[in-house]
Amino acid sequence: MKFSIDRARFINQTSNVQRAISTKTTIPILTGMKLDLTETGLTITGSNSDISITSFISKDDADNDLKIESVGSIVLPARFFNEIIKKLPGDNFKLEVLDNNQTLITSGVSEFTINGLDAVNYPHLPDVETDNQLVLPTDVFKEVVNQTVIAVSTQESRPVLTGVNFLITSEGLTAVATDSHRLSQRKINLTSDEDYNLIIPGKSLTELVRTLNDSVKEVSMSISENQVLFSFDNIMFYSRLLDGRYPETDRLIPDESNTRLTFDSSKMLSSVERASLLSHESRNNVIKLEIKAVDKKATLYGNSPEVGTVEEVLDCESIEGDDLEISFNPDYLKDALRSFGSNTMIEMSFTSPLHPFTLRPVEDSDNFVQLITPVRTF
Amino acid sequence: MKFSIDRARFINQTSNVQRAISTKTTIPILTGMKLDLTETGLTITGSNSDISITSFISKDDADNDLKIESVGSIVLPARFFNEIIKKLPGDNFKLEVLDNNQTLITSGVSEFTINGLDAVNYPHLPDVETDNQLVLPTDVFKEVVNQTVIAVSTQESRPVLTGVNFLITSEGLTAVATDSHRLSQRKINLTSDEDYNLIIPGKSLTELVRTLNDSVKEVSMSISENQVLFSFDNIMFYSRLLDGRYPETDRLIPDESNTRLTFDSSKMLSSVERASLLSHESRNNVIKLEIKAVDKKATLYGNSPEVGTVEEVLDCESIEGDDLEISFNPDYLKDALRSFGSNTMIEMSFTSPLHPFTLRPVEDSDNFVQLITPVRTF
Repeated sequence: MKFSIDRARFINQTSNVQRAISTKTTIPILTGMKLDLTETGLTITGSNSDISITSFISKDDADNDLKIESVGSIVLPARFFNEIIKKLPGDNFKLEVLDNNQTLITSGVSEFTINGLDAVNYPHLPDVETDNQLVLPTDVFKEVVNQTVIAVSTQESRPVLTGVNFLITSEGLTAVATDSHRLSQRKINLTSDEDYNLIIPGKSLTELVRTLNDSVKEVSMSISENQVLFSFDNIMFYSRLLDGRYPETDRLIPDESNTRLTFDSSKMLSSVERASLLSHESRNNVIKLEIKAVDKKATLYGNSPEVGTVEEVLDCESIEGDDLEISFNPDYLKDALRSFGSNTMIEMSFTSPLHPFTLRPVEDSDNFVQLITPVRTF
Repeated sequence: MKFSIDRARFINQTSNVQRAISTKTTIPILTGMKLDLTETGLTITGSNSDISITSFISKDDADNDLKIESVGSIVLPARFFNEIIKKLPGDNFKLEVLDNNQTLITSGVSEFTINGLDAVNYPHLPDVETDNQLVLPTDVFKEVVNQTVIAVSTQESRPVLTGVNFLITSEGLTAVATDSHRLSQRKINLTSDEDYNLIIPGKSLTELVRTLNDSVKEVSMSISENQVLFSFDNIMFYSRLLDGRYPETDRLIPDESNTRLTFDSSKMLSSVERASLLSHESRNNVIKLEIKAVDKKATLYGNSPEVGTVEEVLDCESIEGDDLEISFNPDYLKDALRSFGSNTMIEMSFTSPLHPFTLRPVEDSDNFVQLITPVRTF
């Protein structure tokens, strides 16, 4: 294996693949980055037990300045290899595999000899059939992920809850996540010939969304029994799926309410951020919302015995229904409010002090709901 | 105590004072920020056992929008108080001390009540006579500090070495720091009626330099027996001095040499950074420099048994004297090179493989020297 390549182009591609590589893996070869050189170009691969990412640098794209002398494969220690490439002096670098997987990297006045590993021992990538692809606009897909992934559980006690449930039917795609204290559900239109019900790990989705920069217009999704493959540009992103049945969540979302507020998401977020400054200092991290519908007044209260108290009169568009006092974790409300984007008009609906309440965008209330369970304080 | 003030102006001043406040102090009241309101304006104070900073917000500056209803003093929990002020909704805020040091802060729809502490219990600031001030241009002073503070010791075993020694005589100011592995010495012109020999803690100088933004043109320095006071704009920065005798360092700096290199500081820095990528992985973190004066060739070698080896042919302007092989910690050389600024022509002079070597700027070789002790590898 021997080639030379444009350094900036190469760095660009390794930075994507790098997301899949962990230094804390129990399989030593997975701390490495795999390079496969064929007559058509160079494929870079990174992997951990959950995700695998490959990026292809084509010989045909003149900007890559890829000159191939001999094909082959090698696995190089990812962290060093990347640091070395980033610091090399030239615009290009040469890479040559010598005997015993020793790899010579030269650029300008610098010459590195790195101990590589035999690529034969690198795990195989999952087999995913790509005949039946679902195609999604990147901006919509990123929105769905960002709006739901906030509610996935970080506890491993119920593994399915660490993922987002994607339900794909003839009616479209429904994405749901819940950690049993809060829930987020988003629906979008999507045409699919087949029905799917899959649970994608939240961490995979977070990494995937980071890989999707603004130049990517569409993402193709291919689903197999225990893997999902997202492909875009020259990148293939594999994630394992979570085993098990995702709980039925539809019945958790109340369809009636006794008290309703409407407000601007950004104004409310600022108020909650202030109120939570003090609740974060108290042991139970709870703030209280008091609604006096007759007076058209809603007030947030936060306190910490050590530091002091805070009182925020909320700037609401409308206040309707019964009076109410309800307490909850302000961080859940902050996450929910951020998921709607800035300056979006929100309806917040309550049944009683001990029942979950919902937040929906006024403009698209059927397709997006955030649900939060209150905290009993009496 | 009751006043209202422009919020942005206030935040600006607290951010300076905040540098002196640590959450890890053993004296609880020092986790607080002290506010003293008089008829002329508001003084904010922060302090720890090493440094104290005060900032004065004048009533006369209309931009401060300081409206005084009644004077007084209070100490407020610094971290919260700052977070609260930063997040308040209005352009202004009001602050009023109620009974029992309870402090009411209001702005727009927000109302905070914070538990304050009695200002009577806050430690007094040091007494420093300001009759005999030394005045230094800020850019020169920052340069002197940044060039020397890199060499102060981080070990408490010899406390004087954790500071920078400032020697002020009729000949000017000499600043020296050494951790006994390396040394940095910088001289500047300065007119002083009196001689001084003081040791300022490195940490104090680092914080001071951060406080000096580009709008500050001059710094005044007043020295008492165990304190130094730097004053500029509306800020007073006090630091304690280190007790003890600073070692004589002049005799450590060799005035003869057998081998000399000259090179551009930035080019050399890039080469050393690459060579140190691998040395950082080996236990002793050493790189080797091999000079073959006859061939006009200088080469850096780095290696790590696990990862591999690196070889860097140095791009030198001139190579003179005897052949040499010398080994040293690349991090000391990196710090030294950075202290000269980018693209500065440097002369590096060696006596023998086991004697300290020096780096000096070719243009100002009498006033600035960095010295590094090599490592014995045989």
